[in-house]
Amino acid sequence: MNTEKITVVKYDGDYLGETQEDAAVEHPLTIRLDGEEFATMVCSPDHLHELVVGFLASEGIIRSEKQIKSLQIDDSKGFAYVELENKQVRNKDYVSKRFIGSCCGKSRQFYFHNDVQTAKTIRSYMQLSVIQCLHLMNELQNHSSQFHLTGGFHNAALCTKEKLLLTRADIGRHNALDKIYGYCLHNRISLSDKVIVFSGRISSEIVLKVAKIGAGVLLSKSAPTTLALKLAHDLGITAVGFIRKERLNVYTHPERIVQG
Amino acid sequence: MNTEKITVVKYDGDYLGETQEDAAVEHPLTIRLDGEEFATMVCSPDHLHELVVGFLASEGIIRSEKQIKSLQIDDSKGFAYVELENKQVRNKDYVSKRFIGSCCGKSRQFYFHNDVQTAKTIRSYMQLSVIQCLHLMNELQNHSSQFHLTGGFHNAALCTKEKLLLTRADIGRHNALDKIYGYCLHNRISLSDKVIVFSGRISSEIVLKVAKIGAGVLLSKSAPTTLALKLAHDLGITAVGFIRKERLNVYTHPERIVQG
Repeated sequence: MNTEKITVVKYDGDYLGETQEDAAVEHPLTIRLDGEEFATMVCSPDHLHELVVGFLASEGIIRSEKQIKSLQIDDSKGFAYVELENKQVRNKDYVSKRFIGSCCGKSRQFYFHNDVQTAKTIRSYMQLSVIQCLHLMNELQNHSSQFHLTGGFHNAALCTKEKLLLTRADIGRHNALDKIYGYCLHNRISLSDKVIVFSGRISSEIVLKVAKIGAGVLLSKSAPTTLALKLAHDLGITAVGFIRKERLNVYTHPERIVQG
Repeated sequence: MNTEKITVVKYDGDYLGETQEDAAVEHPLTIRLDGEEFATMVCSPDHLHELVVGFLASEGIIRSEKQIKSLQIDDSKGFAYVELENKQVRNKDYVSKRFIGSCCGKSRQFYFHNDVQTAKTIRSYMQLSVIQCLHLMNELQNHSSQFHLTGGFHNAALCTKEKLLLTRADIGRHNALDKIYGYCLHNRISLSDKVIVFSGRISSEIVLKVAKIGAGVLLSKSAPTTLALKLAHDLGITAVGFIRKERLNVYTHPERIVQG
């Protein structure tokens, strides 16, 4: 459902010839909130309920799934209709206006207003070993199909120290994490002993998303940006990157990663 | 300037130890348009003038650089102050509202309003050979430093059939292309015989951006999405993906790619 067959003219080193291959489906989804257009995103069309719940929580519109009175998805037209229990008066300008403050660390000045309200500082005392980090990344890659690794998907997993609990794939970096966030809210998962494993780069937006979900450890196959590391430092998140074969880099809060 | 030294705790297969490494700088840039906040983006902090010009053109705010009366960038605070020659009355709602129409092909229903106004259908008769495609991608990779290939940057180049004219790197997929767009507008580059080479995935937004810039051929190292291919088909763009070593896939308008 996240892929479709397409016709392609392939050059294999010798000749151009027509063949069939899989391609990732990009699906537009417009969320209408209490009758008004709220946002349009482009996503992979699975786990749309989780995606909408996670997205609304990320944006600070809800804190628990109970605040949603009804949620209907019209798959064919790509619309999600959401009614909240308590209609809120939203100040549209606040959603995207840059917020310059200095509440708890220099990097916070780059938060958007809704991020300030929803990103939590993580106070988790969990610890995991280097071997566990390598194992979890390896599991994510084994679990993702070859197409998911090469076809332009971002893969994310919610894990304990020992194993993957669920994986989600999406063509949108954020969407894979919003689907996990929606799952956590729906199933009231406790996050204090959980780890997020992600195939993509550690950007500031990904760190903010992990803080909103409430996990204390982020494992990534890729590189971080400097702003992401400032945020991870301030928000109490252990950011581990470049996890490849037998190597990894711990960038922030290394107290949660131990030898062995 | 696009990178900074950071301290990292590295696991090298045997031990955890502290070391220094480069990381990509993520720089917030807020564009104020005629005194009002217009957008905040996160980017790599080089070629900011080109980025702002290209971004405003992408959003349909300007069509040529002459429409900008003044453009000042306050690097330290991350603000760009733009004054237009003719103050326009912008309908804010139109910028992001989903636009459902059926002007010239089914996929067009997914355009946003500003995309409908700015994306052009490409009518270029240029042709290039498979060998030229492989050569251009190879040049982009040779030109990008090892850090640019592994550090989470997106690399893009503007090319003739034979060679790269300029390359831009950015942590944001779109920004690398907006910097190229800004360069083209600033230097009034004719696009009918040009090619865009890109390190990232062929998504619908990237195809729209290439159509706005006005190039007829997009070469990518990565996979396309199905929506991107529908748009490329409708907009007259030759999309070539998975260019790796001696292989490539032509997805749309293969008439521009010839054997040899």
